[in-house]
Amino acid sequence: MNTQTLKGFRDFLPFEARKRQSVINTLKKVFESYGFEVLETPALEYEEVLLGKYGTEGDKLMYRFEDNGGRKVALRYDQTVPLARVVAQYGDKLPTPFKRYQIQPVWRAENTQKGRFREFLQCDIDTVGMDSLYADAEIVACTIKALESLGFKNLKVLINDRTVFAGMSSENIRIIDKLKKAGREKVLEELSDKSLLQKIESLKPTKTLETIFQALKEMGVDKDKYEFSPILARGLDYYTGMIFEVEIAGYEAGSVVGGGRYDNLIGMFSGKQVPATGCAFGFDRVLEAIELMKLFPKDLSTTKVLVTVFSMELGSNSIQVANKLREASINTEMWLEADTKLDKQLKYADQKGVPYVVIIGPDEASENKVTLKDLKLKTQQTLSLDECIQKLTS
Amino acid sequence: MNTQTLKGFRDFLPFEARKRQSVINTLKKVFESYGFEVLETPALEYEEVLLGKYGTEGDKLMYRFEDNGGRKVALRYDQTVPLARVVAQYGDKLPTPFKRYQIQPVWRAENTQKGRFREFLQCDIDTVGMDSLYADAEIVACTIKALESLGFKNLKVLINDRTVFAGMSSENIRIIDKLKKAGREKVLEELSDKSLLQKIESLKPTKTLETIFQALKEMGVDKDKYEFSPILARGLDYYTGMIFEVEIAGYEAGSVVGGGRYDNLIGMFSGKQVPATGCAFGFDRVLEAIELMKLFPKDLSTTKVLVTVFSMELGSNSIQVANKLREASINTEMWLEADTKLDKQLKYADQKGVPYVVIIGPDEASENKVTLKDLKLKTQQTLSLDECIQKLTS
Repeated sequence: MNTQTLKGFRDFLPFEARKRQSVINTLKKVFESYGFEVLETPALEYEEVLLGKYGTEGDKLMYRFEDNGGRKVALRYDQTVPLARVVAQYGDKLPTPFKRYQIQPVWRAENTQKGRFREFLQCDIDTVGMDSLYADAEIVACTIKALESLGFKNLKVLINDRTVFAGMSSENIRIIDKLKKAGREKVLEELSDKSLLQKIESLKPTKTLETIFQALKEMGVDKDKYEFSPILARGLDYYTGMIFEVEIAGYEAGSVVGGGRYDNLIGMFSGKQVPATGCAFGFDRVLEAIELMKLFPKDLSTTKVLVTVFSMELGSNSIQVANKLREASINTEMWLEADTKLDKQLKYADQKGVPYVVIIGPDEASENKVTLKDLKLKTQQTLSLDECIQKLTS
Repeated sequence: MNTQTLKGFRDFLPFEARKRQSVINTLKKVFESYGFEVLETPALEYEEVLLGKYGTEGDKLMYRFEDNGGRKVALRYDQTVPLARVVAQYGDKLPTPFKRYQIQPVWRAENTQKGRFREFLQCDIDTVGMDSLYADAEIVACTIKALESLGFKNLKVLINDRTVFAGMSSENIRIIDKLKKAGREKVLEELSDKSLLQKIESLKPTKTLETIFQALKEMGVDKDKYEFSPILARGLDYYTGMIFEVEIAGYEAGSVVGGGRYDNLIGMFSGKQVPATGCAFGFDRVLEAIELMKLFPKDLSTTKVLVTVFSMELGSNSIQVANKLREASINTEMWLEADTKLDKQLKYADQKGVPYVVIIGPDEASENKVTLKDLKLKTQQTLSLDECIQKLTS
C-alpha cells in the first residue's frame, strides 16, 4: 500500500521538527521584543481573493479547486495578500500601525528541486499603515537581531532604494540584478549601454537611505552589519522605497531574508493607499545555513532524561524518581514497561537523542540514590536525588 | 471586492491568536515534560492514503481535489492516519515506543455551527508500539497535568474499558452512550432490555482498569481527578482497551479531551498489529472553557511597553531607552514617528492592549529619567531607567 508523501511535501520527524521549533521560537521571541504580534489566517481562501495578485505565473502555481459546495477556493500562496485582506476586512478594529508577524505554511505547485518545496513555512514581519522611515529601519534592525539570535555572526544586509531605478528599463534592471550570480563580464556583455553598470555602481545613497542609515545607527545597529548596494534590485513592481536582502558569509544558496517598502500593495482590496514595510525570512534557507555553520546546540532533545525501569519490583521507585524530576521542571521520560532489558532501554534513549539516563537498581534503591548516566560522555555517577536534579538543571 | 473568509474558516487577529499561542505553549511544555516529541506531517497527502479510513461520512467531509499534475490529493483530515503512515513509512528509523505530539490544523467540510469549524487545530499525544498499561496511565496523567497547567481545577477524567461492551449490540451501546445527554428516562424508554442499564452501571472495573488506576496512583495523580465510568462508550470500532473523556465542571459543551487505546489502527498500512494509546485535545473547546472560567491572565499582551516619542528633538532619547529596555529582555515597542500627538500614541497602546507606556519629555530628558504610565491602573511614576526596568521585570 502506498505510504509515500507527495513530491515537494515533507514529514518532519522529531529530530528535524525540533530544530524547526527552536528556530521558530527564537524568531518569535525577537519579533515580539519589537512589538510585532502574531496573526493567523486560514489555509483556504476564496480563489478570487488570491487570484491575479501574483501574476500569471502565480496563478499557475496556486493550488486551486472547487470545494464540496461548488465554491472556488485556493490554498494560501503567501502571507502578504491575506494580510492585505485582513487590513481591508477589519479596518479600524486593527491598531495603526498594525505590526504583525505571521509564521504559517504556504503551498505552491512549483517544480521541485533542491531547496524548493511545494509546502514550506513563511515567516514574515510587516509594519502596516506607517510611512515613517523609522519603520523601515526597524524592520532591518529586527531582522539583524533575529539572525544574530540564531547564532549568525557574518551577516550583511544589502540595502538599496528602489527609486534609483526610476526611468531605467525593466530589461536593464533585470540584467544588473544578476551581477552577483552571473558575474561582471556576463552583465557587461548583455547590457546595450555598457556605461550603465558603472553609472549605477557609482550612485550615492538617496536621502531616504541616509535617513534610514541614521536611524539604524540610533537603534544601535553595528555599521558592519549593513551596506548600501546600488545594484540590488529585488524584482520590479512590488517595492516602492527601501529594499534589502541579507547574505550570510559562507552560505552560497542565496539571501536568507528579503524585504522592503511596498506602499501600493496592502490597499489592493480597499482601493486606498496603505503604506507598508516588511520582510520575509526564507525559513528553509535559514535552517540550512544554521546546519551548515553548525549553529544548532549539540543537544536539541526536548527530553532531558530517561528514567529506566530495573525490574518489576523496582518499578514504583522509578516512577517516584520520574515524578520528582518532573516537579523540578526537568523533561523526564519514564520507561513504561517493567520487563525490558536495561540495554534496550539505553539504546532507546540513545536513538531518541536523550542525553541522560537514570538507573535505580537494588543498590541504589536501598541507599536511596540514583545512578545518572551521561550518554554522550559515557560517564556515570551515583548520586542522591537532589544532586541528580542539580546536575540536570545546571 | 470580496474580502470575506470562507464559512467555517477563521482569522485570528493578535488578540485571539496570542491566547491560542499561550495555550499551545502550555500544552507543548507539558507534553515535552513527559517525553513526547513534536511531529509534523504535510497538509496535503495522496487521497488514497487518507481515503476509506474515516468511513463514508469521513470521505464525504474530506477536502479532495486533483492537483496540477492530475494527482488525487486530500487535505489532512485528522492526525492519526498520518501518524499511521509515518509509522509504516519510517519503520525502524523511529524509536519504539514512538511518543509524539502533533499540533496542526485539520480540514473538514462539515456543516458549520456553533463550535464547529471547517479548519481547526488538533492537539494529539500518542504512544505507539507499546502495549503496557503504564502507557495508558501516562496518557491520562499527562492529560490531567496539561489541563491543570492551563488553570482548570474542577476536572474529572471518566475512564472505562471498551471490552466491557463485548457481546453487546452496537444499538444498545449507542443508546447507553447517550445517558448523560438524553437522561435516564429516555434511555430506559429506548432500551428493549430495560435491565441492561442497571447491569452496566453495576459493573466493576476490569483488571485492566485496576492496573491503570494503580499506575495513576503511583504516578501521583490525585484520586479525585478520575473515576470509573462503566457507561462511557466513545463510539464503537476504534478503541480496543481503556477509553477516557475529560469533563470540566461548569463547562457544558462536552468533553474537552478524549482518547484511549487503539491497537488495530496504526498498523493499517503495514498490515502488522501496532499497539497504540493516546488522546486528542479539543482545542477550540479548551479555549472556550478557559474563556468561560476566566483563566486567561489579565495581561496576555506580548508587548510589555510602548516607548512614546515626545518630539522630533527627543526622538533619539526614546530610541536609546527602547534599546535598553529590549536589552533587559522587555518586549518593547517604539513609536516610529516623531510628529504624532502623545494622546494618539497612548490610545494606540491602549487599543493594542500594551499595559505600560514610557514617556520621555524635556523634563525627563534633562533629569535622565523616564515617566512610566500604567494604562490599567491609570497611575504614573517618574523613575530612573534602572528603576523602570526593575518595575517592568518584577
